[in-house]
Amino acid sequence: MNRAAVPAPVTQVLDAAGSWLPSAMADVERRLERIATGRGGALAEDATTTLSAGGKRLRPLLVLVCAGPEAVTSASRGAVAVELVHMATLVHDDVLDDAPLRRGRPTVLASSGRMRATATGDLLLSRAFGELAGDGDRRQVALLATASVALARGELAQRRDAFDLAVGADRYLDRCRLKTAALFECACAIGDSGTDLAGFGRRVGLAFQLLDDVLDVTGPPERTGKARGTDLIDGTVTLPLILALERDPSLARAELHGIDARSSEELCDRIVASGATDDVRSLARAQVGEAKAELDRSGLEPDRRRLLDLIADGIVERYA
Amino acid sequence: MNRAAVPAPVTQVLDAAGSWLPSAMADVERRLERIATGRGGALAEDATTTLSAGGKRLRPLLVLVCAGPEAVTSASRGAVAVELVHMATLVHDDVLDDAPLRRGRPTVLASSGRMRATATGDLLLSRAFGELAGDGDRRQVALLATASVALARGELAQRRDAFDLAVGADRYLDRCRLKTAALFECACAIGDSGTDLAGFGRRVGLAFQLLDDVLDVTGPPERTGKARGTDLIDGTVTLPLILALERDPSLARAELHGIDARSSEELCDRIVASGATDDVRSLARAQVGEAKAELDRSGLEPDRRRLLDLIADGIVERYA
Repeated sequence: MNRAAVPAPVTQVLDAAGSWLPSAMADVERRLERIATGRGGALAEDATTTLSAGGKRLRPLLVLVCAGPEAVTSASRGAVAVELVHMATLVHDDVLDDAPLRRGRPTVLASSGRMRATATGDLLLSRAFGELAGDGDRRQVALLATASVALARGELAQRRDAFDLAVGADRYLDRCRLKTAALFECACAIGDSGTDLAGFGRRVGLAFQLLDDVLDVTGPPERTGKARGTDLIDGTVTLPLILALERDPSLARAELHGIDARSSEELCDRIVASGATDDVRSLARAQVGEAKAELDRSGLEPDRRRLLDLIADGIVERYA
Repeated sequence: MNRAAVPAPVTQVLDAAGSWLPSAMADVERRLERIATGRGGALAEDATTTLSAGGKRLRPLLVLVCAGPEAVTSASRGAVAVELVHMATLVHDDVLDDAPLRRGRPTVLASSGRMRATATGDLLLSRAFGELAGDGDRRQVALLATASVALARGELAQRRDAFDLAVGADRYLDRCRLKTAALFECACAIGDSGTDLAGFGRRVGLAFQLLDDVLDVTGPPERTGKARGTDLIDGTVTLPLILALERDPSLARAELHGIDARSSEELCDRIVASGATDDVRSLARAQVGEAKAELDRSGLEPDRRRLLDLIADGIVERYA
């Protein structure tokens, strides 16, 4: 992993841990690279594009920290597998959203077309399970399969709810649990089989998605790598809009179908003005607070607990 | 499994086996149904469409026959998993091919759109590995992951080679190995861990694809459920066309880009007239012959061997 490209919260965690964690993360990165370039040709190109677009590597970090220094070697394949599933869904999501950019770079869809992007996603998903078969146990395969089923169900729910301003907070939260929280939960459960850290992962994942949805409304684009209001243009109704609709009834006349970039930014301004984004941020902070309270109850030893606290805080800080 | 819908070769195998095989196939069918309808809502609908479109269930049959009556119970999840992977690739292939029909019925793509079809494919693939996690061993997960990586690579190769009349027989055969033979090989290897039946599966799978490609050229549509020359319209250069190009140099002027249904049927007639389809059929028969010779050498007991012989013959007969 190129440390220069690592976001601050991840760096904090790496610095706070002993050398075992940076070394394990570097090992994960090498494995991911080997998998992406292992076959040559067009695939390698596409998979490498996806890989080098980087990302926070938060999910493998969760796997490794939950495993702790004693179990980190055996958790390494799980960390790789979780990130591969995440990458596969990114590639397929971009196909579904017709997204030209991700993190400021062209998507596999944009550079190689819909067909290669669909096959590349399938391939990354298959490789994820192949990675676990190396020395993972059946429990890990079951956890990853459950999470990856949830991701697909979340994607289906998002399509079903698209452009529907009647979607309420409950349905939105269910979707977040499927689309995001399930893989965070899986990362924690794959890493640690002793203590029950699944609830911690679920809450942190939910907070992560809530804050991601705030960021789509508030920007700034130079930080997110995409224009403000992209979700609105895709018809994705998220909590900031749902709460804004409750606070500002005049917003009910908004129409997402065919909305252009400018109107979408204007709508973002109105959502912020309603106070909805502040409310969603508070909700995310509350989730992080509860996640940390779960750690208090977990009986986890202080070292792992401190690192997980840092990760939870980092998710909030990143969006502060 | 609705016996009325079962193609003749499969029925022959079921009749030739003791009651253990029809009963195990019925169990596979029940599991597939439960998985498809397990979640309710749009997903259940789409997955059930895919399921009830049926198909030959050749791959689960191979798993169970390779396992034999003693190991059939533990092989049942493997049989389900292999069919789920097959179904996932069908759903994604239809997205890539923009195919309105499969086996004479609307595809998930046609009935529910590209987005739901992509997510449904992801879901079926994830469920496949979830099924193995139930009581499958690590060996089975590794085999399925390898096959499902091969399928995605085959799909990528097919896109790369699309519309390219310079693609030769070697590249075509490599593609068939990835796209089709790998999952047949996996089915045999998942079913039987004792004897090496992988080579048998690989050859039978290759013969299956060769004959499928002949059928696209020869039809008749009432048997295949799709128009003749569909591969040509999709730009898929298969062995009948490759060999026809060698035999009839005037075909080199053919242009697949933008070819319409009528010109495609005319091209099919010229491929048949060149004798290429007969040659491909012979090649497929030779593969089946070698597959059976592998059985001779395998030291497999007579009962399983007889059933595998029947399956191999059935693949040829179906296309006779």
